[in-house]
Amino acid sequence: MARIKSRGRRQNVKGPKDGELRLIPLGGLGQIGKNMMAIEYGNDIMVIDCGLMFPEEDMLGIDFVVPDVTYLLERKDKIRGLVLTHGHEDHIGGLPLILPGLDVPVYGTRLTLGMVKAKFKDSAPDYSLETVEVAAGESFSLGCFRLHCISVCHSIPDGIGLAVETPIGTIVHTGDFKLDPTPVDGRITDYSAFAEFGSRGVLLMLSDSTNVERNGFTPSERLLGGTLENIFRTYKSKRIIISAFASNLHRAQLILDAADKFNRKVVLMGRSMIQNVELARELGYIKADDDLLVPQEEISRIPDSKTVVLTTGSQGEPFSGLVLMSKGEHRHITLGQKDVVAVFASPIPGNEKLVSRTINRLYACGCDVIYDRDKNVHVSGHASQEELKMMFSMVRPKYFVPVHGEYRHLVRHAQLAVEMGIPQRNVHLIQNGDMLKLTGKSAQVKRNAFPAGGRLVDGMALGEMQSSLLKERRDLSEDGVLVLSAVLDSEWEVLGEPRIESVGFIHMKDAAGLKSELCKAVKDAVAKGRSYSRRDPEQLDSLIVNRVKDKLRQYGIKGRSYPVIVPMVSVIEEKN
Amino acid sequence: MARIKSRGRRQNVKGPKDGELRLIPLGGLGQIGKNMMAIEYGNDIMVIDCGLMFPEEDMLGIDFVVPDVTYLLERKDKIRGLVLTHGHEDHIGGLPLILPGLDVPVYGTRLTLGMVKAKFKDSAPDYSLETVEVAAGESFSLGCFRLHCISVCHSIPDGIGLAVETPIGTIVHTGDFKLDPTPVDGRITDYSAFAEFGSRGVLLMLSDSTNVERNGFTPSERLLGGTLENIFRTYKSKRIIISAFASNLHRAQLILDAADKFNRKVVLMGRSMIQNVELARELGYIKADDDLLVPQEEISRIPDSKTVVLTTGSQGEPFSGLVLMSKGEHRHITLGQKDVVAVFASPIPGNEKLVSRTINRLYACGCDVIYDRDKNVHVSGHASQEELKMMFSMVRPKYFVPVHGEYRHLVRHAQLAVEMGIPQRNVHLIQNGDMLKLTGKSAQVKRNAFPAGGRLVDGMALGEMQSSLLKERRDLSEDGVLVLSAVLDSEWEVLGEPRIESVGFIHMKDAAGLKSELCKAVKDAVAKGRSYSRRDPEQLDSLIVNRVKDKLRQYGIKGRSYPVIVPMVSVIEEKN
Repeated sequence: MARIKSRGRRQNVKGPKDGELRLIPLGGLGQIGKNMMAIEYGNDIMVIDCGLMFPEEDMLGIDFVVPDVTYLLERKDKIRGLVLTHGHEDHIGGLPLILPGLDVPVYGTRLTLGMVKAKFKDSAPDYSLETVEVAAGESFSLGCFRLHCISVCHSIPDGIGLAVETPIGTIVHTGDFKLDPTPVDGRITDYSAFAEFGSRGVLLMLSDSTNVERNGFTPSERLLGGTLENIFRTYKSKRIIISAFASNLHRAQLILDAADKFNRKVVLMGRSMIQNVELARELGYIKADDDLLVPQEEISRIPDSKTVVLTTGSQGEPFSGLVLMSKGEHRHITLGQKDVVAVFASPIPGNEKLVSRTINRLYACGCDVIYDRDKNVHVSGHASQEELKMMFSMVRPKYFVPVHGEYRHLVRHAQLAVEMGIPQRNVHLIQNGDMLKLTGKSAQVKRNAFPAGGRLVDGMALGEMQSSLLKERRDLSEDGVLVLSAVLDSEWEVLGEPRIESVGFIHMKDAAGLKSELCKAVKDAVAKGRSYSRRDPEQLDSLIVNRVKDKLRQYGIKGRSYPVIVPMVSVIEEKN
Repeated sequence: MARIKSRGRRQNVKGPKDGELRLIPLGGLGQIGKNMMAIEYGNDIMVIDCGLMFPEEDMLGIDFVVPDVTYLLERKDKIRGLVLTHGHEDHIGGLPLILPGLDVPVYGTRLTLGMVKAKFKDSAPDYSLETVEVAAGESFSLGCFRLHCISVCHSIPDGIGLAVETPIGTIVHTGDFKLDPTPVDGRITDYSAFAEFGSRGVLLMLSDSTNVERNGFTPSERLLGGTLENIFRTYKSKRIIISAFASNLHRAQLILDAADKFNRKVVLMGRSMIQNVELARELGYIKADDDLLVPQEEISRIPDSKTVVLTTGSQGEPFSGLVLMSKGEHRHITLGQKDVVAVFASPIPGNEKLVSRTINRLYACGCDVIYDRDKNVHVSGHASQEELKMMFSMVRPKYFVPVHGEYRHLVRHAQLAVEMGIPQRNVHLIQNGDMLKLTGKSAQVKRNAFPAGGRLVDGMALGEMQSSLLKERRDLSEDGVLVLSAVLDSEWEVLGEPRIESVGFIHMKDAAGLKSELCKAVKDAVAKGRSYSRRDPEQLDSLIVNRVKDKLRQYGIKGRSYPVIVPMVSVIEEKN
């Protein structure tokens, strides 16, 4: 794991003053992903969520990023518990790496905890997880904090927002939410609970900023039911293959219902789809008769016109079910003119090209393809502007901090708060690493108060790596590497011929002329280095690099096209 | 330059049979970019466009891709000319690399040729370009082909479509077009010319597929005039900074007009913006009084409320004007609360993250930002479904080939053709490298008939490179490189200590334990290699690689996390 640049430096922050509450954003403020927020008062800390973030495209070779929790590790004894709002990766994905270090109990709803347990079983089976199941409508205490779980509707079932009573007032955290009036599971966002806390008086609200750029209301998930019916009616004789997010169990339910209605069997494909649907059925979040589902091994015994395949791969993920099918590499499915494929998701920003390539390949298989361009195949799980405004109206907080969003989302949400009547001075635009200090009467921001840069996880566990490695990988990826070795005797005479190897630059065997010129450059550099009164190996390395660059320039390679140049000089003392 | 995988192999294709016309798509069919199409009949070939394509994100270090024109180079003597439909990079950008090899005259409208000349001045100043200026409404001959230029409206002025009379019938190529009824320059797509050729009888139509996924009509460019007026009225006292495509001179005209109307001066920034606007003014495509424009060096003498800056960078391009401003690195502009920045463009697929980061940084500068999420700041230059349908109605071709699009766009456009009454058997879905052979009575497709993969250009000119280099760069980018050198005497005894260096993997100085283990692994491998009766340096290399992997595995690095391992063994013979 590597630390990436942190906006704050490690420093000994003292504990809060008497009567002071601290809001400590460890992730998700200034980025989409790795959501994590701590609240500290007196001798108590409580933590909300512990997510991961998928890497930016310039984080080469990195699998994911988790929050830097140095602040918490330095105050381990004070942490009373970690509360999860729902089961998405950007809220629970950091747990296997972070929780063992904190070693505190985890609170969450039944489905959320079910997903957490499955995750630990896979990736940290030895850790003895301590969980406490809570439900919307229930309350519990963590040190001086009294927490109330509030039902919220989102693109995964069993989500909650939180009202946290603290010694100086109530904090409302919306979690990720939308105000869908007709959710698939009938479990709407609990307006009256939010309004009830609002009328009792809320000191601070933290609200989901993901969709603040969208006008109006986010459509109901139920809208997709209509699209599904159309597809089932239109493609009566074809096999129907539907790809969707494995965690969107509402959508899975809609698809199962449609299959049932149109008298088709459902075959689940993709590890996470099978795992999540099974878990959700076990816990009662998905309703489907046993005989509706057919294992993938038995797909051949059902006629095409009676089959629905529900698979992963809606984001074009390289080894997902849909992508394997599109490449003709799936074990159980060969796509052709007898199939229609519907991708029930929009590309997440950054995945556009992967999705686009998958759709091109699907068309090349000869099947019909239904996707987001002109069809209703996706609705968001996050509140749009009008819903966010309603949340302000219900909760009517004194202070507001926008959460869960890139900086532009936070700015827009802060502007919306002012439009909704919250005084500008009470709206605090803070990012990961900034600390908000609240008393009943005042609020103060300390910028870059603690380390919050994130830790890069690249599947290897060789202690801490510097982020400069990423820079090196970028350089390598642009123009490759050129290695030049030379053996010198104790008099710095070159023994034998220098060796030249390259990776990702040019194939040396096809460039004999350049190769011999580079050998000459190395020898010239050694001769130069030898002529100095003090023979310095480091200086010799830079002499080689410079001579090599000169040669490359003569071959028309210049400026930013140089490869990474690695000189390897060995000085061999005379044998005894 | 490297060749990428070509769907066809180089083969000796004979010339067309008597009465046979060949359509030879060299680029742009099955991809967005590097548009190029040849038409061959008897002893004559004519070529339409010669574009470049920006690289896919897995083409590491590649600057752009141009068509593979092997087919044309093998038939150089037959080429009568190259016609350009308009001045966008995906239609003219391949010329500096390709035209010198073909050495034929280039036909185009005044603005298009102006842009081509500027391009050659920059990148191939020694080539003596032969150009022939044509205009919409004019006709000319290339061998047996009679070409008619038809005015089309697009996101750059002076675009044309082509009607090509051939010995077996007329081919209509729409070029890139939209049917905007109120274009900024008043130059609409010439419906009557298309309809006129249609009523005379068209054998084959080639039509722009870029926006086939969009319902309805593409809005008029003039729509943005309203957005501009709103901005100028709302931000009366602020400096206004607008970013747009440098080639969209219609949009530049709208911005200049708005500035003039609201009594502000315009400062142009970014090399291509300055160059294009100057060229367009010179050639009469942009109307702006001299005193409306102020050079960037003099920006400080105009009050903020009287300034509009028009800059490049709407796609978040790394060294563009807007990006430098957002980073606080621009020579003439420091952004702050006194500024409003409007990005008058949508992100091109693939650029979403770059644009998003730029907007985040702009907000962090404290300025107001207007961008695509909920404002009318962009309209496309390509026809949507209803416009494409109108084109079918006007031209009523016998055969149809969709051009300019990824495979999914071509499929959708083919489906649209059938909906519009063209028989399925007369709609030909072909891609780069497929050849369509037409006679007056029949059409036949030969798949993968000629090489059409594309040539990768990465700014260096060291002959042909294999595309395997890209694979190597991807490996390097994922996990870095580890170089291990050892010096052996003639008996294969290791002299001194092996050297270990890494780039993008781990910093060896922080991993002394691993380093000494790796040294040991190298020595073990050498001992093993020495023990064989035949001492084979290549075998020794693989012994080293395997031992090193074993060690890395012990350190928890496995599977796909191995770095690229480069062994460098030198065997030194005894000195005489």
